[in-house]
Amino acid sequence: MLSVFIIGNGRMAQHLAKALAETDVQIEGVYARDVVKGKLFAEQIMAPFYSKIEEVPPHCDVYFLAVSDQAIPTLSALLNVQGLVVHCAGMVSINAIHKQVHRGVFWPIQSFSKHTSVSFKEIPICIEANSEENVRILEAIADRISKSVHILEEKQRQKLHVAAVVVNNFSNHLFVLAENFLQENELSFNLMKPLIKETAAKIEYLSPRLAQTGPANRNDLNTLLLHQDLLSEHSNLLEVYTCLSESIIKNKSV
Amino acid sequence: MLSVFIIGNGRMAQHLAKALAETDVQIEGVYARDVVKGKLFAEQIMAPFYSKIEEVPPHCDVYFLAVSDQAIPTLSALLNVQGLVVHCAGMVSINAIHKQVHRGVFWPIQSFSKHTSVSFKEIPICIEANSEENVRILEAIADRISKSVHILEEKQRQKLHVAAVVVNNFSNHLFVLAENFLQENELSFNLMKPLIKETAAKIEYLSPRLAQTGPANRNDLNTLLLHQDLLSEHSNLLEVYTCLSESIIKNKSV
Repeated sequence: MLSVFIIGNGRMAQHLAKALAETDVQIEGVYARDVVKGKLFAEQIMAPFYSKIEEVPPHCDVYFLAVSDQAIPTLSALLNVQGLVVHCAGMVSINAIHKQVHRGVFWPIQSFSKHTSVSFKEIPICIEANSEENVRILEAIADRISKSVHILEEKQRQKLHVAAVVVNNFSNHLFVLAENFLQENELSFNLMKPLIKETAAKIEYLSPRLAQTGPANRNDLNTLLLHQDLLSEHSNLLEVYTCLSESIIKNKSV
Repeated sequence: MLSVFIIGNGRMAQHLAKALAETDVQIEGVYARDVVKGKLFAEQIMAPFYSKIEEVPPHCDVYFLAVSDQAIPTLSALLNVQGLVVHCAGMVSINAIHKQVHRGVFWPIQSFSKHTSVSFKEIPICIEANSEENVRILEAIADRISKSVHILEEKQRQKLHVAAVVVNNFSNHLFVLAENFLQENELSFNLMKPLIKETAAKIEYLSPRLAQTGPANRNDLNTLLLHQDLLSEHSNLLEVYTCLSESIIKNKSV
């Protein structure tokens, strides 16, 4: 039976542990800096909690460093273990785990929120490891929680991370800007929700290129000017509006 | 029984007619400039087709001008009818229908695609008309196809239209840019689909402000630089990346 250990108690740690808890993988324990929150999390997944990183059991198959990018080098260096140590970050090199003989990366392409459950089955997981055998171990674990497992080298993973920022962080920021603008005008953001859901649902059967509509896409300069006028007192949104409209127009002419 | 007439055979006309056809509203006919496509559409909703706008029957309760913004003034002026003439555009003034005694606006907040069916029930419909009685007629029709009907004056509707462009057209453009970037790097856009779906699903229970994550949001300048480096040969995406990252950073400091 494969055994794993979770380091961290953030959103990545929690979602990953919950997905693993539903498989035959054994979660041997949890370590977290925050003892109160860490204990609570360990209880939830019915695993022992370790408050000292030096006491983490040394013989698990895989140690998941589900911590911030910055914490990966330091924490991984403190681990006194024999198993495979992996981080869960999109942009961090496998070599940030420099002190470990067996090292790897296990990055699910998803943005996890608190208080929500995500079905891991659909989430692509990108894996990388410093040996063929370690890749197989990660693959065995990833296959248990996801239908979409990809062995990728660092550069490709980083490119996926950029794209993920573009489709997730930036889209969400557009929602924030729209919400602010509507609230300032006493209009409800709820009116946008069916449209947002349809925009995302559409990509399942239609390439975004074919789904593109709107004034910039049809070069409707009249509407663009009217919109910019309506945004004249919202300089932040106006800048984004202009930048993205120009990008749509440029993109069409390519 | 309420009777309506559809002018146009585009995506708005088709989605609207299909939704109306499922109610007790009687569709008296269809007019479209394109006779071949128009006839086909009229057949689909089992309504008579009119190829001459002068011959459109004069006594329907409501005439839907589901045509391009530019075509609204001309077409509405050619209509020789007594009923209420409405357009379905977010940005166009009710007075674009200047020659009609009874005029209004009937704008569903949705971006309609070909070959897809949308459940109208969830789609907000914004209505406006030039008399209390005409508002009631539009309300009676809108209530039959949607749970979310809103009587709104022009300025408020136009602000919703800007917001709709931001959340729909701009998000979709981000998907286009990500798809192009991934394809150029031999990576599949499919890997982004679960993330895109989750980004949209999240707004149902979480304010976008609270859902915001990513390097710009946590002021992670190191990752921003790495990303910009990866985009150095993709000037269009790089510009958008920089513009939106700056906007996220600015927005946090407000």
